[in-house]
Amino acid sequence: MNEFQLIKRLTQSLATNPAVVVGPGDDCAVLDLGVPGQRFLLKTDAVVEGIHFTRETPPEKIGRKALARGLSDLAAMAGTPIAALVTLALPKDFDPDQVAAIYAGMNALAREFSVAIVGGETTTNPGGLLISIALLGSATAGRIPLRSGARVGDGIFVSGTLGGSMAGHHLDFTPRLAEARWLVEHFAIHAMIDVSDGLAGDLRHLLHAASVGAVLLKTSIPVSQAAKAAARVGTNAKPAVLAALTDGEDFELLFTAAPGDAVALLDGWKQQFPDTKLTCIGKIVAGEGIRLNDRYSSQLFHGDGYVHFA
Amino acid sequence: MNEFQLIKRLTQSLATNPAVVVGPGDDCAVLDLGVPGQRFLLKTDAVVEGIHFTRETPPEKIGRKALARGLSDLAAMAGTPIAALVTLALPKDFDPDQVAAIYAGMNALAREFSVAIVGGETTTNPGGLLISIALLGSATAGRIPLRSGARVGDGIFVSGTLGGSMAGHHLDFTPRLAEARWLVEHFAIHAMIDVSDGLAGDLRHLLHAASVGAVLLKTSIPVSQAAKAAARVGTNAKPAVLAALTDGEDFELLFTAAPGDAVALLDGWKQQFPDTKLTCIGKIVAGEGIRLNDRYSSQLFHGDGYVHFA
Repeated sequence: MNEFQLIKRLTQSLATNPAVVVGPGDDCAVLDLGVPGQRFLLKTDAVVEGIHFTRETPPEKIGRKALARGLSDLAAMAGTPIAALVTLALPKDFDPDQVAAIYAGMNALAREFSVAIVGGETTTNPGGLLISIALLGSATAGRIPLRSGARVGDGIFVSGTLGGSMAGHHLDFTPRLAEARWLVEHFAIHAMIDVSDGLAGDLRHLLHAASVGAVLLKTSIPVSQAAKAAARVGTNAKPAVLAALTDGEDFELLFTAAPGDAVALLDGWKQQFPDTKLTCIGKIVAGEGIRLNDRYSSQLFHGDGYVHFA
Repeated sequence: MNEFQLIKRLTQSLATNPAVVVGPGDDCAVLDLGVPGQRFLLKTDAVVEGIHFTRETPPEKIGRKALARGLSDLAAMAGTPIAALVTLALPKDFDPDQVAAIYAGMNALAREFSVAIVGGETTTNPGGLLISIALLGSATAGRIPLRSGARVGDGIFVSGTLGGSMAGHHLDFTPRLAEARWLVEHFAIHAMIDVSDGLAGDLRHLLHAASVGAVLLKTSIPVSQAAKAAARVGTNAKPAVLAALTDGEDFELLFTAAPGDAVALLDGWKQQFPDTKLTCIGKIVAGEGIRLNDRYSSQLFHGDGYVHFA
């Protein structure tokens, strides 16, 4: 049983109540707490030593990343963060100075995005360091793009550049909160997700949720400098565009919108966020799966890394 | 540096914003989200294998306890739970059936208290099993008893019976949510906390927060059957009243109210909650520390277990 099957099994019959607008399965849960026109978002996310960082990662960057990941999930729902709760599970020999440094990194990012750190817990963990952060945010009712909203014909857009995040970007990325709010204020964004599992993996989440397929133009995928540099290193290196499709931890916005909005969207974005790329990488089609096109060929992309990739 | 010193250091300059009414340091954080007359509560709490349960604890009970602890914190602020987020950190060899059983125990309790489980994460933990649960609740503005509200002359009250929780109560207790709401609806509760560290330890939190002291009548402390049974086991066993003062994990309500309210409070409680004890165990006094009185003596209780205890 893999992670997704396990999650599916666990979330089949969870307790609910009338405050819940969107339950488990999207980037955040959506609640109606009685404020007209407003919704509230809840999200929890954990980072674990050996998976999301190593023993050598500077503690400030670990703290920053732990919070930034959850903020990126709020961004995927066009939310504004309000408050965070922090659970630190520490190995027994952990140095209080390192704990303070983790908090310093987290706190600096919290200040940048006006997130209040309102509580937390510090406990012992017989394994390595683990940080779990729960976030409360707000969003405008009717302007919360879910994963399930993609429609046949939609353009598929992605912010920034993708791939090679582990070279550093995964510790330094800026959650796309401002960009996401700008998007929903100016356009009808049909579906949105943040790229954490990798472009192909997260696009698949959108496709499954709406029972549609996608055609991507291979040459349009915005490949990061880091992915290009890694691809040049050796003969066994992943081709750069494959890295962009599968590496993950990019924390960019992946969304769909009506094709008629594409020009205004790309133009408006360029004026608003001149330092951040926005690229239309393809379109939503009837059917299923991800098809990768270039000038000469069209192939179904399986996204497990085993596909023969020229 | 102990846990309390570490927490103090970490929480000295945390990021905040105007939504925060009460920040870190009480049983829950209190937020104003724009609903007139209403406040919202946030709390996170973690249970860890080897500390809060053992490898032999049935997984349903682990899940139940993980949620019940946080609900007890909401009770201490007279809150009503709304939604929960669950982080499960699992050892690599963990059986999906056990995960399902943990969720089943959690879910049954969530249903009982109308808490929606709106999301969560399952991650790998190189150590043992760890469950972190974040809770959102609501409470009535002006009726949220903080830890800091105790006044000289107040009666000190505690629900239920105390001590010996590890014999079973820590896995089966019912969070005192209904009792706490009834209390604040009918009386001016000056200060409240749930008993998790032990009566003496948690009373000290109230005393420090208000810079006051307490005098307890030793014979009035409600000692559980479990603590009495444990005290009979051997010559090295903890005296039952010491167990009631220091064992912890009772998850009862400890609160103070004006002495003039004592009779009405005890009478009303007995009618409302006939199966649950409520006891006035002493009073708040000027000064500091906990003094334990009986008919013949009066001693300062240090609560570290090293005090000579007759």
